[in-house]
Amino acid sequence: MVIVGAGFGGLACARKLAGRTGIDVTIIDRHPYQVFAPLLYQLATGGLPEDDLAYSVRAAVPGATFRRGEVVRIDREARRLRLADGTVIPWDDLVLAVGSTGTTFGTPGVAEHALQMKSIQEARAIRRQLLQTYEDVELGRRPREALKVVVVGGGPTGVEISGAVAELQRAMRREFPEFYRSASVTLVEAGPRLLPSFSEKSSDHAREQLEDLGVTVKLGTAVDRMYPDDVHLSSGEVLTAGTIVWAAGVAAPKEWEGLGPTDRSNRLQVSPTLQLGDGIWVIGDMASVPGPGGRPLPMVASVAMQQGRYVARAIVREQAGQPLTPFAYKDKGQMATIGRRRAVVETPRGLKLRGTLAWLAWLGLHVFYLAGGRQRLSVIADWFWNYVAWGIGPRRTVID
Amino acid sequence: MVIVGAGFGGLACARKLAGRTGIDVTIIDRHPYQVFAPLLYQLATGGLPEDDLAYSVRAAVPGATFRRGEVVRIDREARRLRLADGTVIPWDDLVLAVGSTGTTFGTPGVAEHALQMKSIQEARAIRRQLLQTYEDVELGRRPREALKVVVVGGGPTGVEISGAVAELQRAMRREFPEFYRSASVTLVEAGPRLLPSFSEKSSDHAREQLEDLGVTVKLGTAVDRMYPDDVHLSSGEVLTAGTIVWAAGVAAPKEWEGLGPTDRSNRLQVSPTLQLGDGIWVIGDMASVPGPGGRPLPMVASVAMQQGRYVARAIVREQAGQPLTPFAYKDKGQMATIGRRRAVVETPRGLKLRGTLAWLAWLGLHVFYLAGGRQRLSVIADWFWNYVAWGIGPRRTVID
Repeated sequence: MVIVGAGFGGLACARKLAGRTGIDVTIIDRHPYQVFAPLLYQLATGGLPEDDLAYSVRAAVPGATFRRGEVVRIDREARRLRLADGTVIPWDDLVLAVGSTGTTFGTPGVAEHALQMKSIQEARAIRRQLLQTYEDVELGRRPREALKVVVVGGGPTGVEISGAVAELQRAMRREFPEFYRSASVTLVEAGPRLLPSFSEKSSDHAREQLEDLGVTVKLGTAVDRMYPDDVHLSSGEVLTAGTIVWAAGVAAPKEWEGLGPTDRSNRLQVSPTLQLGDGIWVIGDMASVPGPGGRPLPMVASVAMQQGRYVARAIVREQAGQPLTPFAYKDKGQMATIGRRRAVVETPRGLKLRGTLAWLAWLGLHVFYLAGGRQRLSVIADWFWNYVAWGIGPRRTVID
Repeated sequence: MVIVGAGFGGLACARKLAGRTGIDVTIIDRHPYQVFAPLLYQLATGGLPEDDLAYSVRAAVPGATFRRGEVVRIDREARRLRLADGTVIPWDDLVLAVGSTGTTFGTPGVAEHALQMKSIQEARAIRRQLLQTYEDVELGRRPREALKVVVVGGGPTGVEISGAVAELQRAMRREFPEFYRSASVTLVEAGPRLLPSFSEKSSDHAREQLEDLGVTVKLGTAVDRMYPDDVHLSSGEVLTAGTIVWAAGVAAPKEWEGLGPTDRSNRLQVSPTLQLGDGIWVIGDMASVPGPGGRPLPMVASVAMQQGRYVARAIVREQAGQPLTPFAYKDKGQMATIGRRRAVVETPRGLKLRGTLAWLAWLGLHVFYLAGGRQRLSVIADWFWNYVAWGIGPRRTVID
């Protein structure tokens, strides 16, 4: 069997199947590493080094074959796929798990002037720009207004990066005290509240906490268009910005649309057993699977991981001639962190945590899910230091 | 006063003077960070992330002014220097501490085909090439011989990188088992023994330990010339190499020669009080200072740090009208690590350590001297993991 995509879903599936007698697992990905995407905002704001967020796929699933490459064609009848370098790889079962990419909704100027945060490279670029701008302002290469940061999108990613940038700006006060008052963060969200998938109470709490960190939150305001140095809002207001982070939307990559009907987010509609036919399974962010109430399941790691494990079991059942039961998502709840000792956690049973306790729960869960022992230890050390040395500790530096 | 160079010497001097009444300290460097150079070989072999080895200069010396820039001209009479961007900076006391660079001794092909390890960028390039080659070989883009590594230079740096590459190759066996036998390390040294500044016993021990790790050690053999894929030795032998690391020599940068007479390594000859006249002090790798027996002091961090602190005291004494005593180096001994639980330590009192104890001493000292709390903690975590998970833990991955 062949798995395309070494994200949370693809690797969860591979881990369950690799090493089983009678099943050869091949994993294909453009990169030789898995990215721990939920923490990319910490790379973008100098909290963690990139090595902590990239985990070798070969080391992650020892029993599997890893093949670095980009899939350019899928021949469903012949059950073969072709990589960009011409290699042809046959499959009996194919699991598609390529994840999602950022989407600009066609907003003019976003692609040219905003930074996204869907990859190590993009998060690294944000970090570089945030830190470099201080020096550029000091040397007179950019005006003081360049220290203003605008974040677009009030979901968990937008909230997390806004809070982390505010904390970074506070920490940079020690190195560039004269520019402290020029630095700012504005978070723009088109809907009526932040974290729309959470309860209203959690939304309000997140806004209050961000404002407490000094973030200006603008709700009910969409971005009309962007220029290199400013963001034009639907309200007519124009925000000056030295750095614009776009966290307003993700969608499945367009390249896979040809395989079947898709939803608004380019996600492939699959059967209740996550199948497309012809031995193809689709999981994670690129699969449109109705959840409770008929709305598609959210594009989050826990859905992808549960689907990956489900497909692994389903393939084994099929081979044994056993019938399949539909995939059922077990909602484990959701969490978003806002800053140091600031977070919101909600479980499906109605438990709601806020503040330090929520933040500790968030910390614990993320450390637990970090794939590698080395990363886990190193992240703990970095976080411990971030926490203990708050405001006095050194920050990451620009390394060209 | 102005300090050029934010290495061990420059920062040791700045730390002692910054914040003292009556003394304004300005530090100039091309990079906004100090590099912890003794551990660059660990970045080059995937042991530590680059963030652990780069420390923000502004955060390191809070009372000082930091100016990023490159010095292009020194006007001794007017006591002014000029940066590449045209800025003119006056000084009353000027401390030159720009360190050293790699030198090829004019050996043909070295500049084109060998990698050096004097900066974060160079160490990063070695790491990238070492890891990427495995994938290139797997994809058939390079022959298996590309996994052969040749290191030139049997000083501490050459010994350290050879041992670390051998250990990396061993760890990569888990991810690329089929290429294990193709990978190798050869260390070439022109002199009769490794670590020439150590005792013969330590030299022999280092060679035995490297050979135990699988490194081929070639003594009494110089490099004649290099081509992209092979190294020609003075013995007539030709070594195939996919990666060539040049650790055979360092010298002071040529740009500063005009300031006065220099020694064979381009180092400026200074007075016993480390002065050049006109309020200029020279310290660290770029200063030629006779040590015991008349030989110039070695180009190592402890010399630079002692000289930095000496000059700080000397400047204060001069301002107070007190006479200066000549700089005297307190030899603290030397150490080189060969691999996990393999190292040699020698103190001037004759204490010699080898093996685990020496390695632990090496670990402790390096953790102690790492400038920042964050780095110290993060390095301990990474080393702990490297040590505990030896051979089974994940390695760093290639991040493009």
